Amino acid sequence: MWWQRKDLNYDNHSLWFAGKNLEAFASELEAPAFIYSAQRIIDNVTRLRKALDNNGFKNKSTIFYAMKANRFAPILTLLKTRGLCGVDVCSPAEVELATGCGFDCNEISYTGTSLTQTELSQLARKQGLIMNCDSLFSIDQWGQLKPGSEIGIRINPGMGVSRTNNQKLQYAGTAKPTKFGIYREQFEAAMSLVNKHQLKVTRLHFHTGCGYLNAELPQLEKIIQQSLWFIEQLPDLEWVNTGGGLGVPHTAEDNPLDLDAWVQTIHRFYGGLGIKLAIEPGEYIAKDAGVLLLEKTFCEVKKDQMFLGVNAGFNVAPEPAFYDMPFLPVPLNDSGERKTLNIVGNINEALDVWFENIDFPVSDNQTHIALINAGAYSSSMASNHCMRGQFGEYLLF
Amino acid sequence: MWWQRKDLNYDNHSLWFAGKNLEAFASELEAPAFIYSAQRIIDNVTRLRKALDNNGFKNKSTIFYAMKANRFAPILTLLKTRGLCGVDVCSPAEVELATGCGFDCNEISYTGTSLTQTELSQLARKQGLIMNCDSLFSIDQWGQLKPGSEIGIRINPGMGVSRTNNQKLQYAGTAKPTKFGIYREQFEAAMSLVNKHQLKVTRLHFHTGCGYLNAELPQLEKIIQQSLWFIEQLPDLEWVNTGGGLGVPHTAEDNPLDLDAWVQTIHRFYGGLGIKLAIEPGEYIAKDAGVLLLEKTFCEVKKDQMFLGVNAGFNVAPEPAFYDMPFLPVPLNDSGERKTLNIVGNINEALDVWFENIDFPVSDNQTHIALINAGAYSSSMASNHCMRGQFGEYLLF
Repeated sequence: MWWQRKDLNYDNHSLWFAGKNLEAFASELEAPAFIYSAQRIIDNVTRLRKALDNNGFKNKSTIFYAMKANRFAPILTLLKTRGLCGVDVCSPAEVELATGCGFDCNEISYTGTSLTQTELSQLARKQGLIMNCDSLFSIDQWGQLKPGSEIGIRINPGMGVSRTNNQKLQYAGTAKPTKFGIYREQFEAAMSLVNKHQLKVTRLHFHTGCGYLNAELPQLEKIIQQSLWFIEQLPDLEWVNTGGGLGVPHTAEDNPLDLDAWVQTIHRFYGGLGIKLAIEPGEYIAKDAGVLLLEKTFCEVKKDQMFLGVNAGFNVAPEPAFYDMPFLPVPLNDSGERKTLNIVGNINEALDVWFENIDFPVSDNQTHIALINAGAYSSSMASNHCMRGQFGEYLLF
Repeated sequence: MWWQRKDLNYDNHSLWFAGKNLEAFASELEAPAFIYSAQRIIDNVTRLRKALDNNGFKNKSTIFYAMKANRFAPILTLLKTRGLCGVDVCSPAEVELATGCGFDCNEISYTGTSLTQTELSQLARKQGLIMNCDSLFSIDQWGQLKPGSEIGIRINPGMGVSRTNNQKLQYAGTAKPTKFGIYREQFEAAMSLVNKHQLKVTRLHFHTGCGYLNAELPQLEKIIQQSLWFIEQLPDLEWVNTGGGLGVPHTAEDNPLDLDAWVQTIHRFYGGLGIKLAIEPGEYIAKDAGVLLLEKTFCEVKKDQMFLGVNAGFNVAPEPAFYDMPFLPVPLNDSGERKTLNIVGNINEALDVWFENIDFPVSDNQTHIALINAGAYSSSMASNHCMRGQFGEYLLF
C-alpha cells in the first residue's frame, strides 16, 4: 500500500495510526470521528523547517500554518506550544481563534479577500498583526486607519499552479483574471495609495494554487520568476510570502514533494536578494495527519454493483464533491474476502459517493472503515446538511 | 427582468420583496442575511395543492415539504400552522426538529439512506412515523424491530430526471447504478424480507433528480412508466410517493413548471389504479421565497476585468460550487451607470465566485446586493469554512 508509513500501517492485519489500533479505538468512539496524529503534524512542520534551514533560509524564514485547513483548537495550541510556526488566517474570526489558542498578533499573518470597512477597522486594532492587503481598496482603507505603518501586498502573478492542473484549485490562472491580489496592471495605482498614506511595503505575498507536487515545480518556478518584477519595485521589501499549496500524495502514482528541490527552486531566485521567506502550508501540515473513521451501515448489491454504506456523507468532508479529489477508503483490517464496490455516504444526494470501484474487504465483523488524508479541508469545511453534521475530533499523542 | 413578480419587483428603482423595501431593510440588518417571504412559501404550497386537486388527486394526495431544502424553524412552524403539508425528512435529527416545530409523527415521512442499526432503532420508537426503506438491509432491520407493520419501499426505477440533464442532480441514472432505493433486480429479495417479517407494503417511493421543468416532463413520464412494474407487484399499495425535484426558473430562458401538465402526467398512469399520491417538494416551495442580502466590499479592476466583492462566500450558499447552478445577483436599486463585472465572495478559494460577466449598476451609494432564488439548499448547507459561517435569517410576514 503506497500510503503506509511507520505511524500508519497494518500490523497482523490490523490498522495502526499514531500508536493506536484503530479497530480497537473505533469500538470506543462514536463515528464519524476525525483522528489526528500530533506527532505527524509536528513531523510535517519539522521536515519543512529542516528543508528551509538546509537550503539557504536558516534564520531567514517563517512558517505560518494555514488554519483554514484545520482549525481544531487542540491542533492550533499544539503548534503554538511547540513553537515551530505562526498561523496564516483569512477572516477576523480566525484572528480571534488564533489569539484564543495562544498566538500573539505578531505570529499571525492575515491575508484575506473582500473585507468590509468594519472588518478592516477590527483588524487595525490588533497591534502587531501582519497584514497583507489584496486590493487597492484595502490598501487605501488600511492606509487611512494606520498611516505610516508597515504592510504586505498580495500580488497576482497572472499564473497558477495546482495538482494535476486542476483549475478549481488555481487562484491565479492565465485563462482569466481572478479576484485575488494586485495584478501588474494595477501595481502603479497600488504604489500611489502606498505613497499617499506613507505606508512601507515590507512584505510581498502571493498564493496561486493548491496541492502541487514535484511535477508542478517547473510551473512554480515560472511564477517565482514573475514575482521578481514586483520585488524590484519595492525598495523596503524584507519578506516574500509564497503562500501555501504544497501537496501530499493522493494516489499510488504520486511521489511526496521533494522539499529540498522545492526550497532550492525558490532560493535560486531569492537567495541573492537579501530577502526572507514566509510560507503558508495548510494541507502539507495537516492532511496526512488525519483519518476519518466511519461506521459501516449496509453492504449489498444494487442492480449489478456492490455498495458499502457508511454513516457520514460529503457534508463532513466536502473535498471530493467540491474539487473532484476523492479520499481513499482503507479497511481497519486488511484480511478476508475482497470485493469490488462503491463506498457511499448517508446524505440523500447524488453527489454523496466516497469512492467508486474499489477493491475492499467485506467481512461482517468489520464494523468501521477509515478515509485517509482527511486531516485538512474536511472538518473545517463541514456543514450540517440534512442535520448530519455531528462528528468527533481526537488529537492523539 | 424575467424574475420580477408581484412580491419581488422594482418600484421607483428600488427593489421590494415581501412588502419590504430591501434598500431600507438592508440598512437595518447585518449582512449576510437570508430574507424569506412567508406569503410566497404559502403561495407555492397552495399552487401545488390546487394543481393536485384540479387534476384528479383531490382528497387523494399529500404534500411533504422536504426540510433538507431549508430547515429554518420559523418556516417549518409556518407550514405546520397553515396545515397545508407534512414534512419529508432524511435523518433522525430532522425527525426531532420536525417534531420540535410541531409536526406529529404521522405527518413526517422518512426516506433516508445508509442508516445505522442504532438510528433504525431510534426511528422505530417514533409511533406513526411514515417509513420508506431504501435497502434490503433496512427492510430486514425494520422488520425485526417492527414485525407486521406497514412500510414504504423506495425503489430505483433506473433512470433519472434533472434540470438540463445535470448529472450531479440525478439520483437514479441510466449510466451507472446509484446507492438509492431497490432496483428491479433486487425486488424479489426485498419481497422475501417483507414476507419474512410479515410487513405490509402500503407505500412505494422514488426520487430521481432535481430541478426539472417542462422540458423534462417526457423524461418524468418514462420514469413513472417504469414504476408501474413495481406497483403491480404490491397488492397492499395505497400510496405512491414520486419524491421531489420540481424546479423553479433560474434563467430568462426557463419557464415556470406547468403544474397542471405535471399532475396530468402522473394522473395519466396512476389515475385508474386507486392509489393516492404523495410528493416531496423542497426547492419548489422554498427556493424562490428567499433572497440572500450581501454587503458590497470593494469594486475595482483586476487585470482587465471589474470585480465587485461581497461579504459572504460560497460556504453560506454552496449550490453554485457543488452543482454549477449560479444564483442571479440583482441590485437593490436598478438605476445608475452599469458595468460588466464579476461578483465574488470573501473566501480565500478559487471556487468562490458568485457570478461572472454580469451587467450591473456600480454606484457607490449602493451598499448591498441580493442573490435571488436563495431560499433552498443555501442556509441548510452552509458551513463555517474560514470561520465565515455567520448569517442572519428573517421570515417576513
